[in-house]
Amino acid sequence: MLVDAVRQGNRLALGRLLTQVENDSEEGRQALVDLFHYTGGAHLIGVTGAPGTGKSSLVNRLAYHYRHPADGALARRVGIIAVDPSSPFTGGAILGDRVRMRDLAGDPGVFIRSMASRGSLGGLAATTSALVDAMDAAGFDLILVETVGAGQGEVDVASLAHTTLVVEAPGLGDDIQAIKAGILEIADILVINKADMAGVENTERALRGLLQLAHPVTHLMHGVFSHAPAQDEPPSHNEGQYWEPPVLRTVATEGTGVSTLVAEIDRHREYLQESGEWAMRERLRLVSQLDHLLKAELVARWQMSISDAHVQAVIERLMKRDLSPWKAVELLLNGGGT
Amino acid sequence: MLVDAVRQGNRLALGRLLTQVENDSEEGRQALVDLFHYTGGAHLIGVTGAPGTGKSSLVNRLAYHYRHPADGALARRVGIIAVDPSSPFTGGAILGDRVRMRDLAGDPGVFIRSMASRGSLGGLAATTSALVDAMDAAGFDLILVETVGAGQGEVDVASLAHTTLVVEAPGLGDDIQAIKAGILEIADILVINKADMAGVENTERALRGLLQLAHPVTHLMHGVFSHAPAQDEPPSHNEGQYWEPPVLRTVATEGTGVSTLVAEIDRHREYLQESGEWAMRERLRLVSQLDHLLKAELVARWQMSISDAHVQAVIERLMKRDLSPWKAVELLLNGGGT
Repeated sequence: MLVDAVRQGNRLALGRLLTQVENDSEEGRQALVDLFHYTGGAHLIGVTGAPGTGKSSLVNRLAYHYRHPADGALARRVGIIAVDPSSPFTGGAILGDRVRMRDLAGDPGVFIRSMASRGSLGGLAATTSALVDAMDAAGFDLILVETVGAGQGEVDVASLAHTTLVVEAPGLGDDIQAIKAGILEIADILVINKADMAGVENTERALRGLLQLAHPVTHLMHGVFSHAPAQDEPPSHNEGQYWEPPVLRTVATEGTGVSTLVAEIDRHREYLQESGEWAMRERLRLVSQLDHLLKAELVARWQMSISDAHVQAVIERLMKRDLSPWKAVELLLNGGGT
Repeated sequence: MLVDAVRQGNRLALGRLLTQVENDSEEGRQALVDLFHYTGGAHLIGVTGAPGTGKSSLVNRLAYHYRHPADGALARRVGIIAVDPSSPFTGGAILGDRVRMRDLAGDPGVFIRSMASRGSLGGLAATTSALVDAMDAAGFDLILVETVGAGQGEVDVASLAHTTLVVEAPGLGDDIQAIKAGILEIADILVINKADMAGVENTERALRGLLQLAHPVTHLMHGVFSHAPAQDEPPSHNEGQYWEPPVLRTVATEGTGVSTLVAEIDRHREYLQESGEWAMRERLRLVSQLDHLLKAELVARWQMSISDAHVQAVIERLMKRDLSPWKAVELLLNGGGT
């Protein structure tokens, strides 16, 4: 019944489902199993960047643009998932929602969910995937997943999205910021937000320089998909055709550059579909989700098989250096006495 | 024999052991099991901070200071583990080593190990812990573990060290940089390096303001140890006595402020030992290490029990939305047919 209501676009039902997914309740799990068949329709867009780059405002503005297209195109339904695992006292998630409410409040075509907790279902990444599935099955055309930090964040946004936006801002350490681990490997589109600030030329030059340097290497050899080849898409399928990440400027607070960004996001979806990479990214995404769930379930089953007293006794012996961690693992997995 | 040589301070043997640990070889594992009994003597110091804060130079200078104490004190033996999981083309690890060589080359009391790979033994964190154990058993007095990124890095340095240094630099986004997730919760000592640069006052003011705001809350309620209470140290042991993270200025390239930093690191060790927190951190560290190894071993055992063909068949059904990820996990764990 919850499943039917979610499929029919009932917002209250979706909200309840998302809460159950976050809490990893039995009902939530069952609903996800039933809904999964209806997933796969949404374009999943990851938005990542350091704090202070204004990515929340950008996501807000993107959603507004999808709801009110300037050129008379059809409005698209947008889901937003903001992942913010930072400390509660920074209040990021709560403030972010308040700012968003102003422009998008009351629009039934937008659904915003902030997640400040780590989730219980196999960590933050697994919970985020499950929330994406729920929104996908609910029929949203685009789902924007906003996370802090690129490459080394707790949620690897690139393994979760079809299109990854990396947001930078002038003056945030510029070249140093850009060299940051993994940033060029995950960006499908680079956005310099707050482009009305001083230093935007330096930031753009640094980013373009790095792209030029790294592009042929990263895309041919270090791509995120190199370790998960699709069975039915031979690499040659994609040969000679590759995506050069554009560098765009935006001023999210004023809406400048957002229509160009929307056009580039659409162009990237077309590229993915024509090149066969869409299926490869789908595979990567699902395998990564499966991986998280499998590990969580392995741990859960093991925990059920062992007594707390046994675990504590092993830890005590470890503390006394009476037992190495490797021997401790053997004792814990073979269920033997201490 | 390798174990004896490592214990006797043979550098070649230690280097070989560390390589075997990184490769997770059978001999390396066995040596760690034999050596573990001799660990627990070193003061483990985590050094973390964003790229560009100069933390490699600071670690270099700290090591030099421990080797050449100004006040006629005894020189201490220092191990350094630099964890840099960034892309190979940034070349961070290699350059870093070259710079280090200049000051510390030929000193038998210093051992430096860079780790650019992710390791195989249950991920980067587990490999780092194992390298720390090997150096600890080899008799180093201090082990400095340098990692990129605070709080959200791949290696949670706070669960690996007794004392965590968080390194900042003026002008790297200042207050924005400081609010970064988790930074205040893991810092035992805050270091503003490059303190001869403009804007150092702003950085210090921002950090002190945040500490004042967050300190009573984070240390009483959100401490990293709150979820892993020690059995034999009741929380009241520590009551009324707590560590206020000092904010220090250094200019690593010139050595300025380094002797004060060394004194504060020693003062922190005394605080840990007198308050009973040392044992709590040891427990957290060992439990975290056990956790990584246990998960890796659970996954390895599962992988041995299942055929690739079965896994691929399940993934194909997942791709077709014929099977939800949750049902897929059930199929994979129960070893049934597809």
